[in-house]
Amino acid sequence: MTDRHPDDGPPVRDQERNLDPSNLESERYQYARRFEDLLAEDDDDALSQLARELSPADLSEILRPFSAEDTVRVLRQLAPEPLADVLAEIDARSTTAFFLLLDHDEIADILEEMPSDEATDVIAELDEQAQQAVLEAMEAEDAQDVAELLRYPPESAGGLMGKEVLSCRDEQTCGEAVAALRQYDQDELAEMHYVYVVDDREHLVGRVPLFRLLLTAPEAVIATIMETDPLYVEVDLDQEEVAQYMMTHDLTNLPVLDHRQRLVGLITVDDVMDVMEDEATEDISRMAGVSVEEFGEQSPARVARSRLPWLLGGLAGQVGAIMVLRHFEQSLASMVALSFFIPVIMAMAGNVGIQTSSVVVRGLATGEVDYFHLGRHVLRELATSLMVGAVIGGCLFLVCGVIVGDLHLAWVLAVAMLLVIVFAAVVGTGTPLLLHRAGADPAVATGPFITTANDIFGLLIYLGLATVMLSLGGAAS
Amino acid sequence: MTDRHPDDGPPVRDQERNLDPSNLESERYQYARRFEDLLAEDDDDALSQLARELSPADLSEILRPFSAEDTVRVLRQLAPEPLADVLAEIDARSTTAFFLLLDHDEIADILEEMPSDEATDVIAELDEQAQQAVLEAMEAEDAQDVAELLRYPPESAGGLMGKEVLSCRDEQTCGEAVAALRQYDQDELAEMHYVYVVDDREHLVGRVPLFRLLLTAPEAVIATIMETDPLYVEVDLDQEEVAQYMMTHDLTNLPVLDHRQRLVGLITVDDVMDVMEDEATEDISRMAGVSVEEFGEQSPARVARSRLPWLLGGLAGQVGAIMVLRHFEQSLASMVALSFFIPVIMAMAGNVGIQTSSVVVRGLATGEVDYFHLGRHVLRELATSLMVGAVIGGCLFLVCGVIVGDLHLAWVLAVAMLLVIVFAAVVGTGTPLLLHRAGADPAVATGPFITTANDIFGLLIYLGLATVMLSLGGAAS
Repeated sequence: MTDRHPDDGPPVRDQERNLDPSNLESERYQYARRFEDLLAEDDDDALSQLARELSPADLSEILRPFSAEDTVRVLRQLAPEPLADVLAEIDARSTTAFFLLLDHDEIADILEEMPSDEATDVIAELDEQAQQAVLEAMEAEDAQDVAELLRYPPESAGGLMGKEVLSCRDEQTCGEAVAALRQYDQDELAEMHYVYVVDDREHLVGRVPLFRLLLTAPEAVIATIMETDPLYVEVDLDQEEVAQYMMTHDLTNLPVLDHRQRLVGLITVDDVMDVMEDEATEDISRMAGVSVEEFGEQSPARVARSRLPWLLGGLAGQVGAIMVLRHFEQSLASMVALSFFIPVIMAMAGNVGIQTSSVVVRGLATGEVDYFHLGRHVLRELATSLMVGAVIGGCLFLVCGVIVGDLHLAWVLAVAMLLVIVFAAVVGTGTPLLLHRAGADPAVATGPFITTANDIFGLLIYLGLATVMLSLGGAAS
Repeated sequence: MTDRHPDDGPPVRDQERNLDPSNLESERYQYARRFEDLLAEDDDDALSQLARELSPADLSEILRPFSAEDTVRVLRQLAPEPLADVLAEIDARSTTAFFLLLDHDEIADILEEMPSDEATDVIAELDEQAQQAVLEAMEAEDAQDVAELLRYPPESAGGLMGKEVLSCRDEQTCGEAVAALRQYDQDELAEMHYVYVVDDREHLVGRVPLFRLLLTAPEAVIATIMETDPLYVEVDLDQEEVAQYMMTHDLTNLPVLDHRQRLVGLITVDDVMDVMEDEATEDISRMAGVSVEEFGEQSPARVARSRLPWLLGGLAGQVGAIMVLRHFEQSLASMVALSFFIPVIMAMAGNVGIQTSSVVVRGLATGEVDYFHLGRHVLRELATSLMVGAVIGGCLFLVCGVIVGDLHLAWVLAVAMLLVIVFAAVVGTGTPLLLHRAGADPAVATGPFITTANDIFGLLIYLGLATVMLSLGGAAS
């Protein structure tokens, strides 16, 4: 099943454990099914064999949709080294559940196998007392790195970085720098592509790409061959800005400095890719009115509890819409056809609000929209919405003319639709821009909040206009 | 202004051109303002000086919100080398506009400065005749690489990869492999961290990390020190799957093979980060009912044209809602209060639909949701929605009791709300899963489509239930 190329695969591949990237989903599904069967049969030997057959990366992906309990049963079959790699990738709930089965020494042994940043993420899931006990059980050097990383906020550059970084002094020679590389574990070296250069005060002054060490005579002094003025970030920079910075400059390694400009760690691009995926999930969640926590959650009760606040907020907002309609009770009673078009007015206001706000939210996230030019964006949306409103209003005029056959009502609808669309576009564009300027996350505004505001004002515009234009006998209740 | 650390910055940084990452947005804004002023003053000398002061990466970010015309005026001030870097990053419209000012030889000179994958992206914006002319003006070797890359679909592994890849034969020695590195440009080497090993049939058989070349004696044979069975993808794999694959395995370099297993190119992680950002933008766009093309678009008429199809589709769907209400005209006429609750029923159906569908869409994108277990997800959502529906229905009962004071209507509302929420959750969960299974993009289903379906069925459930439970004299029109 894992044999990708039965006919023309090169013969040197004696053992094939990587899944076929062109058929990944179905290969993973077949493995997932086999795991499910073995879990049901309680066949630990076969489970162990199957788990060892896969690379840690594939195994962690296959286990994603599994419950914490089932994940733990698979993890128990693994040796410490692949186990460390899998634990670094799977979700926090499964890790926590797994660690409940182990004593502190066993946890410490696993964490020592991990890069310091991943060990920190894992240990952060434990309570403070357990953290202390595990740190005491770890080797002093590893424990010191992890203890330092635990002090940084998880969403900062300090929380992302690892302590593993190649560095040398500016006055050393290339030969000395290469000799120093031999101290490192080969796995650790795999992600590091530069030797960072510090001066006698431990300040970062340059970097040397590994290929340059290869091509330079051993006696050359580092200071003469290094690239000066390397890009860096400080420990307290927000992770989203770190990700944008690495992406803008196409960096795979980014050194992190403390407030005294001393080199304290290194961020690698794989950490940043996880940040980008998480941030996109966060934006989508906020637009849709769900909590990030519910991703991967299995219990319907917990999912319901995480969704209810958004819905109850929406319900509270809709009480406003109920009050608007009650206010226009007399108009609605004297012309039932008015109520036929409530859904279309609301839906169009909602659609335009979501379109405009998500363009702004995404544009702010990617740098496409510049929030300092607030007025310019709002003006551009105003022009766009006038055109859109005229077209949709015209279509609604025709729809009403054909279905209800009342041209007066059709006029009211067309004008109301135009006004509602312009209003929704301005609210949808302006709200996230104002929020961003005020330092809040603009994505919060998108979705439920803007939709509710547009619903209420849309109904006010529509029914107010209808009552006045069709002389439906005053709106007083 | 660009001096980050006036007090404690290391003195070796004689020339500071990198923007401060902790204050990026405001620094970029200040540069943008200065560019705007200079563009207004038509001061080409100052414009040129300012553009040269910035790194290409920062300059391309600062120019993002600028119009194509203004961008071109800045680009004209640049020397070929930074220009090539900026062109690789800015949007296609500006590139096309800029190239209209140049003849084919000038374009060819710029493209020769670029990595082959970026040169291909840029040349792909030209029409076919211009492409041919530019390719003929380029140096033969560069032209051949670009012409080959142009043949691959832009969203495939072949479209992402560059032709720049370090390779050697398995029977060469380390010393020979290092000597071969000297042929490459230092800029090209910066992104390459492995030497890929091929056998006499050009089949990929291994890879050697650069650090291992550093630590190995020059006379060692490559085949004895290489890592065998390296991960790879084939040229026609979709770019989204390439991105997921690199992310799962934390790769910075991924070799690309043709159908005969020969090494034909290399994908670097910076390309994949762009793909991830684009795919997230695409998902958000589809959820919100906007086209990806409108990002960065300046003309309101073009934006309006790209948004109208979604809105007209929504309008067509809402005609269904109008027909439903017309069908229940008699019920609405005999009880005006019924219409007060149309917005809240619709809004809740919409919110639940967006919540459930975006959780599925995002889960499918990240691998959190496994689409083979369709039934399990729908069952879980059913349980969740029963709880959510009971709570929201209960609240609506209270709201109706207090505002309208009609307990019969309150009962109808509570039951209708529960049913509508359960229905919306099942549709919101099931539709993207079914679409995904059928090979379509599940994100298309989210947003306008699901909302419209939920609106119509929500109204049918609510008004049908009210007509029956409150004996509002038949729904026949």
